[in-house]
Amino acid sequence: MSLTIVGTVAFDAIETPFGKTDKIIGGAGTYVALSASYFKKNTNLISVVGDDFPQDYLDMLKNHKIDIQGIQIKKGEKTFFWSGKYHDNMNKRDTLLTELNSLADFDPVVPEAYQNSDYLMLGNLTPSIQRSVIERMHNRPKFVMMDTMNFWMDKTPEDLKKTVSMVDLLCINDEEAQQFSGENSLLAAAEVILSQGPKYLIIKKGKHGALLFDKENIFSVPALPLKTVFDPTGAGDTFAGGFIGWLAKTDDLSFENMKNALVIGSVMASFNIEKFGTERIQNLNKHEIAERIQKFIDLTSFEINPDNL
Amino acid sequence: MSLTIVGTVAFDAIETPFGKTDKIIGGAGTYVALSASYFKKNTNLISVVGDDFPQDYLDMLKNHKIDIQGIQIKKGEKTFFWSGKYHDNMNKRDTLLTELNSLADFDPVVPEAYQNSDYLMLGNLTPSIQRSVIERMHNRPKFVMMDTMNFWMDKTPEDLKKTVSMVDLLCINDEEAQQFSGENSLLAAAEVILSQGPKYLIIKKGKHGALLFDKENIFSVPALPLKTVFDPTGAGDTFAGGFIGWLAKTDDLSFENMKNALVIGSVMASFNIEKFGTERIQNLNKHEIAERIQKFIDLTSFEINPDNL
Repeated sequence: MSLTIVGTVAFDAIETPFGKTDKIIGGAGTYVALSASYFKKNTNLISVVGDDFPQDYLDMLKNHKIDIQGIQIKKGEKTFFWSGKYHDNMNKRDTLLTELNSLADFDPVVPEAYQNSDYLMLGNLTPSIQRSVIERMHNRPKFVMMDTMNFWMDKTPEDLKKTVSMVDLLCINDEEAQQFSGENSLLAAAEVILSQGPKYLIIKKGKHGALLFDKENIFSVPALPLKTVFDPTGAGDTFAGGFIGWLAKTDDLSFENMKNALVIGSVMASFNIEKFGTERIQNLNKHEIAERIQKFIDLTSFEINPDNL
Repeated sequence: MSLTIVGTVAFDAIETPFGKTDKIIGGAGTYVALSASYFKKNTNLISVVGDDFPQDYLDMLKNHKIDIQGIQIKKGEKTFFWSGKYHDNMNKRDTLLTELNSLADFDPVVPEAYQNSDYLMLGNLTPSIQRSVIERMHNRPKFVMMDTMNFWMDKTPEDLKKTVSMVDLLCINDEEAQQFSGENSLLAAAEVILSQGPKYLIIKKGKHGALLFDKENIFSVPALPLKTVFDPTGAGDTFAGGFIGWLAKTDDLSFENMKNALVIGSVMASFNIEKFGTERIQNLNKHEIAERIQKFIDLTSFEINPDNL
């Protein structure tokens, strides 16, 4: 089934206790699309860059069988640039610089070839822009997933609620779920959010894993225990890309298969944090992914017969 | 296989946002033994109380088929008393009062009938007292599990290390694992601790579940997502009781069966926090436990064939 992704394609400069990068390719759309590309070929990417964006980076996306005709290249403008620095324990980061550049007046265009996509992933963006993409599709996709962040909860809460009400799945972290719902317990937060439109909710808990909810079911997947997190940039987007890539590949919206998608998302995120930026998820193979899935199986599987106490 | 538990039997007075109790039965030994009693009959309990300790409470333990000949009743002394208050989010508690009373000079006696126990659980106590119990057994038990806390890491670190070096399994929480090992990553912490004697390590993460390590394997179990934690007192001890009760029942020390024990511990802890003190784990039945195990299976099970990407 066809998959369209909307999200930033950007320059990032990252500093962690392990080193720092020059301007490298980043952006939610980049991470989501690269991660999804291991499961779904010919994924469509809607974004905007300036004419300073290197052809090499665009070629790299094409080499991952990502369709980039939806990336607008703005003449005379510069590409969105973010720079950030992580503290020692990697739990907090400071944004050093945000230059919106070509993103400031991003007006997404949905190419004709993307119009009938079955799956749509809205990366973190202004909620009204996310909504415009749904509205610009000829047919409402079968499944729409969105990411967002606390910034929009503070800045444009009504706009955010409106967009959330139009999607099938909302993917946010634990603090965002608490803020958005006004509930401290994640279970109570899920009940509130699932009454506002989405049929499914993912709550990401960083090193504590992730939870998937619908109105009847809950599924929990741990994060892979690691000695070192090299660079967490893009981990949430990589997670989302693995999730939606698996769904688009399998085209099975049962809760059982969504569980699998959550594991795939966690597998992909566990790779992403091993190296700077997109380096690790640019260079994966199916054998490595299969091995990592097996690690998650070993980490979580048990066999008790509850009738046998 | 026979199981002996060492730990406090005490009075607790608990205040949470949901209410407060008078002096009720508490203590690590009480929680561990009650929880284990659902899996292992005739568990032995070594402890000490004053002569103010009600016969009703002792009868309640006996009714759970707990052997209490190892509980010393000190004439003219009072029972250990702890009083605490939980804050709104249940993450922090203040100790309002600690009266050691008969616990101050606790000198554990191992009755003859307990001497050949196969499984020994050392509840949180002064490390030298925990060690004395191992030393007072005629034969070193097949499997010794111990709990401890940050208090002993600060107060008697060398004594604690000596006791830890003598046990098979150490069960502590995430902050304690970090403090004890000097490592921030739990995986790195586990490596350090498993090089100091224990063959197995459990790291409890509260609402984020628990991890089980040996030198080759890791297993992760989530906590059951709940809307309300009514009273977390004794949750860690209830967890430990379920774990060691299952091991003693099955007498299978494979890592696969230890995974099951970790799930059983989590199941029992999930009940404990539903009511004040020991109220919930005094009144469980096998049907409820089986249903709760099924909830953990639903919460964690998935089926991906990693060869089928």
